[in-house]
Amino acid sequence: LFDGRQSAIAASVQRGCCRLLAQMGYAAVTEFSLATGRRVDIMALGPKGEIIVLEIKSSLIDYRTDAKWEEYLDFCDRFYFAVPPEFPREIIPGEVGLVIADRFGAEILREGPHTPLPPARRKKLTLHAARVSARRVHRFLDPE
Amino acid sequence: LFDGRQSAIAASVQRGCCRLLAQMGYAAVTEFSLATGRRVDIMALGPKGEIIVLEIKSSLIDYRTDAKWEEYLDFCDRFYFAVPPEFPREIIPGEVGLVIADRFGAEILREGPHTPLPPARRKKLTLHAARVSARRVHRFLDPE
Repeated sequence: LFDGRQSAIAASVQRGCCRLLAQMGYAAVTEFSLATGRRVDIMALGPKGEIIVLEIKSSLIDYRTDAKWEEYLDFCDRFYFAVPPEFPREIIPGEVGLVIADRFGAEILREGPHTPLPPARRKKLTLHAARVSARRVHRFLDPE
Repeated sequence: LFDGRQSAIAASVQRGCCRLLAQMGYAAVTEFSLATGRRVDIMALGPKGEIIVLEIKSSLIDYRTDAKWEEYLDFCDRFYFAVPPEFPREIIPGEVGLVIADRFGAEILREGPHTPLPPARRKKLTLHAARVSARRVHRFLDPE
């Protein structure tokens, strides 16, 4: 799906978003697999357990080939598309959250709709994020 | 408190314990700070959200200078001391969990008492573990 250039753009957007999230007090988990099999580009956990999801779109083609954004709302309290500065942002529906990002940082242009998670799903997603992240740290520290 | 040799032993025990925990399907978080200010050596999250704590004791002196082990029970469903093979294990009370570990692996010699966490504390510890681990991953990926 991605050529090399799209991947490089996506990596920059990811990096910038994670920096913004850290500044906001959120802890970001990248390439986070849901129970449905879908993998979200970034999920982030706020200090009170708030869950936001950012889906990176590096280009128009990438955006057009994606599933409907409404699907993501079931897995977060707030959802945003995150795009590079050169992305034609006017094509993104006005009711969806929008973040512009490059390699060095990001900015929220528009808040996503607030769709509070049911407690059981929040609990499950939080535990899953904890286990995925802890295992990633372990793999860094003990790669064997 | 630690001389170089004690730290090296503790690091080996930590590594072996984390390997055992991974084999058991637990995701381990090392040097995990609690709200009380106390830092536990290893906390680990099971597939259903079970929380266990392992406290590493590299030597008799290390063991003797520690606070009472009963304090740890408030922060986990099960508690274990983790010690190196040469540790005089007979001095550890028979009702506490006991793990023997070296650099390459570990073994549970005795299960710790089962002290189920209240749901609110489990939720808080899980969220804290998720945020701490996600931030550690982020620091590895983007050290700036």
